Amino acid sequence: MDSAPLGFFDSGVGGLTVVRAVQELLPAENILYLGDTARLPYGSKSPETIRQFADEDARFLIERGVKAIVVACNTATAHALPGLREKYRLPILGVIEAGVESALANPDAERIGIIATRGTVRSHAYQHALALRRTGLIIHARETPLLVPLIEEDWIEHPATEIVLRSYLDPLVQRGIDTLLLACTHYPLLIPALRKLLPDGVRLVDSATTCAEHLRHELASLDLLAAAADVGKLEVHLTDLSEEFETLARRFLKRAPGRIHRAVLP
Amino acid sequence: MDSAPLGFFDSGVGGLTVVRAVQELLPAENILYLGDTARLPYGSKSPETIRQFADEDARFLIERGVKAIVVACNTATAHALPGLREKYRLPILGVIEAGVESALANPDAERIGIIATRGTVRSHAYQHALALRRTGLIIHARETPLLVPLIEEDWIEHPATEIVLRSYLDPLVQRGIDTLLLACTHYPLLIPALRKLLPDGVRLVDSATTCAEHLRHELASLDLLAAAADVGKLEVHLTDLSEEFETLARRFLKRAPGRIHRAVLP
Repeated sequence: MDSAPLGFFDSGVGGLTVVRAVQELLPAENILYLGDTARLPYGSKSPETIRQFADEDARFLIERGVKAIVVACNTATAHALPGLREKYRLPILGVIEAGVESALANPDAERIGIIATRGTVRSHAYQHALALRRTGLIIHARETPLLVPLIEEDWIEHPATEIVLRSYLDPLVQRGIDTLLLACTHYPLLIPALRKLLPDGVRLVDSATTCAEHLRHELASLDLLAAAADVGKLEVHLTDLSEEFETLARRFLKRAPGRIHRAVLP
Repeated sequence: MDSAPLGFFDSGVGGLTVVRAVQELLPAENILYLGDTARLPYGSKSPETIRQFADEDARFLIERGVKAIVVACNTATAHALPGLREKYRLPILGVIEAGVESALANPDAERIGIIATRGTVRSHAYQHALALRRTGLIIHARETPLLVPLIEEDWIEHPATEIVLRSYLDPLVQRGIDTLLLACTHYPLLIPALRKLLPDGVRLVDSATTCAEHLRHELASLDLLAAAADVGKLEVHLTDLSEEFETLARRFLKRAPGRIHRAVLP
């Protein structure tokens, strides 16, 4: 058992959907969350830049004594996770492996759709992880860069968002996908809207709940879980304090984020 | 006369609309352009962070011997221009003053609409600059944060963009604006779409052409214009080299940007 905090990082607020899922599943865990809001988003930037930013984020958390790190950002997982694991000795989990395992837990999954930022799609990390685990899959990945801005504007119910979603999803539906991987930590907020637009049989797999389950399993196997009687705390650090963050955080966490600290990266 | 380059900076690609207007008006000028693509956008970030980034951008240009600086970004102009002018001795121009002067060049302008990023609207820089110059103006400013992502996706003709534009513009039209200030350097690309949606009498004022005219006037008065016989060159430096930039730059400049350099900020 280990009462040290778990470290999470993301480019901004999206990773809080993962935090929320972890708080539900592992309420005893202390959580240190770093959002690199000064340099967000990561999804449209180059692999080299994302790796540099992710390394600075990880160092910030390690210097604060976290027992493990969750890269709560699909783009950073896609580009930076292997390098971080080579460089640092503590357990480092991403969001991709968990999503892929969950998608393939259904033995009938054959036609997998993926929606994600440009950076995540172009990394081919999901496509590669899927193909490694099952041969013969038909994979269709779509870059959906307008979804994060629409979610952050809280335009989820707006008619413009429905048109954007249809534009993005129609080609996937036409190809008969049976599973849709929501490969961005913002997208769990779209689940009700996606349900309305997709055929009934399509299974949705998101990064938040799958990562929380994966994390529980990993912590248990390494004997790193907090004592079950503890009540975990959340501490949020951001590289830029904007007026919007608290409003956004409340929507993503479904509760107030508490006091927010200004982070200066090493 | 002075053949040293003019320095431009912006968070990304938007400032290239200003570059294009300057190239048309002042073809003899050499231009050094810095896009802080690793940390874009600036429009959603806090004033402190924008001021810090703008200062680093200005230092990069000054170290390369520019004769004057154009802050080719409305958000950076709104938050950082006064501080930069106090700190550095070379001429530093923003995009706000020129737009405001041009809007008020029409003596009948009374009801002014402004569309801009959240950062620009909340700075009240435009509202303040307008109110200082003419009493009794009726000013309506709208935060329009989805327009930059839609422009960068090249979805200008997409039905989703029309719905978004109508949502943003309808309240301004209902208030009877006679002038619309396009207070973001991305927005000149929307002019044809805006023309279709706005009543005939509404005058559009953009940051690019107005800033180019203002710059010509300032350089002439300080005897800093390049010799008319020169053929100016454009040199682009970016803090992050992404695959998209060249495609975007071509649309914003209406020509190829030439070789792009990786910038490391001081």
